[in-house]
This record gives sequence, C-alpha cells and structure tokens, in this order.
Amino acid sequence: MMPQPSTKTLEIQAGFKEDQCQYCQLIETGDGPLAEWFIKLAETRTSIAWLHKDQLWPGRCVVAARQHATELFLLEPDACQTHLREMVGLAEAIQREFGADKLNYECLGNMIQHVHWHLIPRYRWDFLWRRTIWEEAHEPELLGDRDYEERIDRIRAHLRW
Amino acid sequence: MMPQPSTKTLEIQAGFKEDQCQYCQLIETGDGPLAEWFIKLAETRTSIAWLHKDQLWPGRCVVAARQHATELFLLEPDACQTHLREMVGLAEAIQREFGADKLNYECLGNMIQHVHWHLIPRYRWDFLWRRTIWEEAHEPELLGDRDYEERIDRIRAHLRW
Repeated sequence: MMPQPSTKTLEIQAGFKEDQCQYCQLIETGDGPLAEWFIKLAETRTSIAWLHKDQLWPGRCVVAARQHATELFLLEPDACQTHLREMVGLAEAIQREFGADKLNYECLGNMIQHVHWHLIPRYRWDFLWRRTIWEEAHEPELLGDRDYEERIDRIRAHLRW
Repeated sequence: MMPQPSTKTLEIQAGFKEDQCQYCQLIETGDGPLAEWFIKLAETRTSIAWLHKDQLWPGRCVVAARQHATELFLLEPDACQTHLREMVGLAEAIQREFGADKLNYECLGNMIQHVHWHLIPRYRWDFLWRRTIWEEAHEPELLGDRDYEERIDRIRAHLRW
C-alpha cells in the first residue's frame, strides 16, 4: 500500500529547484519544512547530518552534502569522496551504538534533488525487515526532546568526523 | 502493495551467510540464482557491475564490491573508497547514456548481505516517479539478448573504470 501523503509531505515535494531547495534552506538557515523532521547531529565542511525525528528505526539519520548538487557525480570529485567517507562513518557510528542487524543506505532524491542519504538501521524485529521501509505506510515514532538529544549524543560518541 | 515473491525471490533470500553468499557465487563462478537476473557489464579489482535484466527503468544496473562484506564500513577503507568512486562512475555513465531525470543509489542488503548497489535511473515518465521502485509490484521488462548487449555497450562507452 502506498503511504498516504501528509500535508508535510506535500510541502516537501515543492522544492525541486535550487533556489527553492529545502536542503539548502535547512543547511543555510536551520529552518524550513525539513526542520520539522530533522535535528542537527554533526557537520563538517562537506556534510551535515541530522537525526530523523521518526525513530521507528532507532538511530535513523539523514546526511546531506553541503554543496547543492542533484547527483553524486555532480559534486566536486574531492567533495564527493569526502562526503561518501563521512556518510559511511556516520553509518558505522549508528551501527555501533544501536547494534542494527543491517544498514540501508539510500540516496534517492525522489522528493528533493539535493544529494542526501537516508541511513536506516534495520532490525530483525522491525515490521519491514527484509523489505525497504517505503513499502508500507507507518505512523512515525516520535520521541521527546530529551530522548532525541540522548540518541544524538550516543551517535556522536562514536562519530569520527 | 507488496510485490509477490516469486520462486526466484525465495531462492535469493536464502543466501545470508558468507559461504552461501549469492554475490560471492556470482562473482567467483558467474553462476547461481543471481545470474538469472544480471549480465556482467564491467569489473575492476574492487567492483563488478551488471546490467539488470529488468529494464523497466532503462539502464538499471547493479554494482557490488568484490570483497565480501555485509556493510560498507566493513570493507577495507581503501577498497571502500575505490568501490564508492566506481559506483558513482557507473551512475554517471548510466545517466549520460540514458538521460535519466534522476538516479536512485541504493545499498540495501535486505535480501543478501554483501555490499551491492541498485543504480536505478528514474524518468519523469516512469510509473513510480517520485516514489521508490519498491513501492508497487511490476512485471519485469525483459529484453532480447541483443538488446541487453547493446545497452551494455552503450553504458561501457561512457564508463571510465
């Protein structure tokens, strides 16, 4: 079954052009529609990572390239390599802290064409184990601010950016 | 709707352990269940790429790390960087040849835990545009051998591995 788009999803779908890019907006101002879902976790000159507020998959994060590019191969080669190394480093930190049974690394851009990754720790107990998380709608698992901060601290403790 | 597992899918799901890894089998012998779906396109010391026989998304490919690892961060760091650079290079070659409107880069491992990427060129005309390709079942678009070879040649012409 296709997930039913919420109002938030429809707002997010609007940002296809660079000057309307919601990742650029979030990176530059910390604000915009994506700020409703993401809490900043770490940043470098090349990448920015956030904890995703939907923690149904504990440790779920998003990491974006700082530079606006619609595809990985359109980033500067050095920036691309650095960004990829940082993406993998964040995945490792998530796995170490949460003991995921598998990681999913997805650079899609179906909604917003600015290079970013969904890093989704997968667990044998998760209701979509062995399937992608996009295949069935689910209620987001939202936490309190203190719990988000605790998860961020736990990931940061492993992150070697 | 969840895709209905075919007999092939069920066979593929079996290979979770390294000694039963169907990517290792394909890489080492060119044979096994995955050979029913993939046609070799190019290889390096670090990566191997195949054209996916389901060409509903023209140019769809898979690229795997030659070394068996369940996660990107478990590859040797140099091999990981090289593999990622090659993965991005293949994505660029696909995009250049097929003029995709977007690429999806997905390293999932939900079925087989050996680092591999689904590189899926996405088109505004495709029936799942702006959604992942996993969200609805579809009939694979199979081609004749000559058409597969032609697509492989077209991608190779752009590939700088």
